[in-house]
Amino acid sequence: MANAPAVAADELTRLLTAEFPQVWSRESGLSIEEVWSGGCRLRQAFREETLRPGATISGATIMALGDYAVYVAVLATIGWEPLAVTTSLNVNFLRKPSRADLLAECDLIKIGKRLVVGEVTIRQEGEDEPVAHLTSTYSVPPRR
Amino acid sequence: MANAPAVAADELTRLLTAEFPQVWSRESGLSIEEVWSGGCRLRQAFREETLRPGATISGATIMALGDYAVYVAVLATIGWEPLAVTTSLNVNFLRKPSRADLLAECDLIKIGKRLVVGEVTIRQEGEDEPVAHLTSTYSVPPRR
Amino acid sequence: MANAPAVAADELTRLLTAEFPQVWSRESGLSIEEVWSGGCRLRQAFREETLRPGATISGATIMALGDYAVYVAVLATIGWEPLAVTTSLNVNFLRKPSRADLLAECDLIKIGKRLVVGEVTIRQEGEDEPVAHLTSTYSVPPRR
Amino acid sequence: MANAPAVAADELTRLLTAEFPQVWSRESGLSIEEVWSGGCRLRQAFREETLRPGATISGATIMALGDYAVYVAVLATIGWEPLAVTTSLNVNFLRKPSRADLLAECDLIKIGKRLVVGEVTIRQEGEDEPVAHLTSTYSVPPRR
Repeated sequence: MANAPAVAADELTRLLTAEFPQVWSRESGLSIEEVWSGGCRLRQAFREETLRPGATISGATIMALGDYAVYVAVLATIGWEPLAVTTSLNVNFLRKPSRADLLAECDLIKIGKRLVVGEVTIRQEGEDEPVAHLTSTYSVPPRR
Repeated sequence: MANAPAVAADELTRLLTAEFPQVWSRESGLSIEEVWSGGCRLRQAFREETLRPGATISGATIMALGDYAVYVAVLATIGWEPLAVTTSLNVNFLRKPSRADLLAECDLIKIGKRLVVGEVTIRQEGEDEPVAHLTSTYSVPPRR
Repeated sequence: MANAPAVAADELTRLLTAEFPQVWSRESGLSIEEVWSGGCRLRQAFREETLRPGATISGATIMALGDYAVYVAVLATIGWEPLAVTTSLNVNFLRKPSRADLLAECDLIKIGKRLVVGEVTIRQEGEDEPVAHLTSTYSVPPRR
Repeated sequence: MANAPAVAADELTRLLTAEFPQVWSRESGLSIEEVWSGGCRLRQAFREETLRPGATISGATIMALGDYAVYVAVLATIGWEPLAVTTSLNVNFLRKPSRADLLAECDLIKIGKRLVVGEVTIRQEGEDEPVAHLTSTYSVPPRR
């Protein structure tokens, strides 16, 4: 299987919940739907506390989801390197999200020795049109 | 006073706490230090739950703070328009933050009829070197 | 034909050459390969004068190509509005291009009344891996 | 002199003209006004061929100038490393430039071992309000 992830989804969930419990807890509503070598799909369950004025999901929630998607895609591709860090992120907000789950699909468009670049499209279930599009660069520790 | 804000800091805090309590609550640690026409300075108090692997403050925390800083600067400049929304945001992470408060200073570099662009530098108290730099564009409702 | 462009490729080439001859001339090496409603594909022929130190095509050449691709996609989608202007652009350079033509494919990911957002992938002929990825926002005059 | 550049402006001009003549020639109108350790100021003389529809200077001209400003600031700070390359660039266009010279001032906001981040403000002579603001990251060869 060419696209088998370096770490499986359930193992990543277990490691992330142990390492980073404030984000990867049941209450946060964040979960891994699928991982593969070169990408992943995450879900952010809808939660009232992510709303902002205008009854729409806050930009902060969307940016956090996009950033985590690139992080998970990096780990699924190069293996468990929790110290990978974001060096830059760019987001365009395209449509106001409604009161529903967000699905983030990440595709790594460059996997370099030190820099990995991911592209993320965020949609809502059953909707064609994306609510946001992000690109982000991660710096990864030198590989062993 | 040429730079007097359209809405004072304590009034903005009161309005934001009423409208957007999940972000502007005592527990969130977010507060307005100063506002003026064209900018503002916010503080994010240090909280254990913002840490990520590597014992550093998460990128999501820093992006949220930068986004709120532009939002507050917009409201302080054009008046209370809570439906102003982010259309894009770009962030560069420059240094790993330590376990201390974050201070975000925002300067609006364009105040158009429909688009407002802000630049934000995020530092830690007593440190010269910034931990992050953001620019963000807000779309604002047509002025009355 | 659902995706028929608002203006055909040869008509766009004629109009752009008349309006913007310093960019759309035979010598510039820039040409439209295909347009449709929602996107386009441009070609930048290889030219020695676009090289930079390292014998690679300059970032300025790549950014210009990406910006023109969104411009052409906008015109092909909303019709001839030459005063559409870029409000922001973000580019990630992914691989060093070699001495060969560049192909830019643009897909508009938001077509709003005033703001249009395009995503562009730039490749070299016969290569799978992109050399650059851009997103850019255009402000368009209110539609008649 | 704490801020003395690693390479003086006239020496940089000489080296760039030799290495990169298609950009650093008399006809291009690009020149170094000042360099220091941590930044620089460049001038792009006004040229008819940089105009785009609307009789304004093209975005491509502005992006190229901003990118060169970070390049020159990097060389003035770490020394002559012509193989430094841009990894990402973000630009916000703030006002339509008029038919006049552009001045780009670059300030390096991070000087890391491998990544250098610069911030650039582009103005026109005698004008307070910027026409554009950019940030850009350069990857630099490991230092000797």
